[in-house]
Amino acid sequence: MDLLKKRILEEGRVVGEEVLKVDSFLNHQIDPELFQEIGKEFYNRFKDKNITKLLTIEASGIAIAVVAGLYFKVPVVFAKKSKSRNLDTDTYKSEVYSFTKQTTYDIEVSKRYIKPEDHILILDDFLANGKAAQGLIDIVNQAGATLEGIGIVIEKGFQKGGQQLRDQKIHLESLAIVDRFTNGQVTFLKG
Amino acid sequence: MDLLKKRILEEGRVVGEEVLKVDSFLNHQIDPELFQEIGKEFYNRFKDKNITKLLTIEASGIAIAVVAGLYFKVPVVFAKKSKSRNLDTDTYKSEVYSFTKQTTYDIEVSKRYIKPEDHILILDDFLANGKAAQGLIDIVNQAGATLEGIGIVIEKGFQKGGQQLRDQKIHLESLAIVDRFTNGQVTFLKG
Repeated sequence: MDLLKKRILEEGRVVGEEVLKVDSFLNHQIDPELFQEIGKEFYNRFKDKNITKLLTIEASGIAIAVVAGLYFKVPVVFAKKSKSRNLDTDTYKSEVYSFTKQTTYDIEVSKRYIKPEDHILILDDFLANGKAAQGLIDIVNQAGATLEGIGIVIEKGFQKGGQQLRDQKIHLESLAIVDRFTNGQVTFLKG
Repeated sequence: MDLLKKRILEEGRVVGEEVLKVDSFLNHQIDPELFQEIGKEFYNRFKDKNITKLLTIEASGIAIAVVAGLYFKVPVVFAKKSKSRNLDTDTYKSEVYSFTKQTTYDIEVSKRYIKPEDHILILDDFLANGKAAQGLIDIVNQAGATLEGIGIVIEKGFQKGGQQLRDQKIHLESLAIVDRFTNGQVTFLKG
């Protein structure tokens, strides 16, 4: 997606060997008009699947999924990261290791909101080691629902999450795949 | 906002004396088409102010603010609740007490994304004791920006947050104000 790659090149800041900061438009400050184009692009890539629900994870995934939901016209469910007093006790749970925060956390989705008849598209902002995606897949499987695919805004192609999902024959669409950081400069894989 | 009140009456679940669960359409599962109407309504109520930025707090506020951002055509910034390795070190910080979780947490916004010349509209899903709103106001003040108003989806009129904000002469617009829960049934204040 050229518009997205352009923004990454213009505004992305590479920190160290592995961190790409895109908080001016993606995950701290958000550009709603760019998100509209992202939502439309996910819709175009998955519109032939019979998606009944979008699934994401708090926090940054929510903005992407809700705008995509305007095109898919289906409900969005976001997995919660910490136990909330207001969440149903009857939940699907999975465990996710965060390399960024170097800690393991639980994610939860109320059983009310994913049913065996659902066809799920998982959406998220980043894919690196794929731990969050695997946790969400685990929840889809626990619910007995059908996983139709995964849509990612920025995949770090030099980390193993994307390859593992493709090896599992999951339909993965990443709008920008970062190949490497060379002297603080981002280069993309085609795709 | 009648459409919202209708959904609260149909799907809201009152738990105990104080908790209203609206997680089927607002803060766990999200109905994007309802959010579109909510975003449009906030735009109509604040379009005469010269808003340059929407400010909210993770997680549920993000979905509301990003959809509203499609109408305002301005960037959305969301305050982060926990220290992230990927957040700038140069941030505005405030402290928020959560009655729901009975704990105090920090919120942070990078100084890059709120400037003295900004005219800020704060948006959030719930207003009860107003602690999150006060934390966001504190951040707007630290930045030297202008607070133009606060938009809330559901205000609990029987808790003190709304009154405190009105006493501070802040332009507060709540799309539904819950008066009380009587035998598990929600009644609204006019407004």
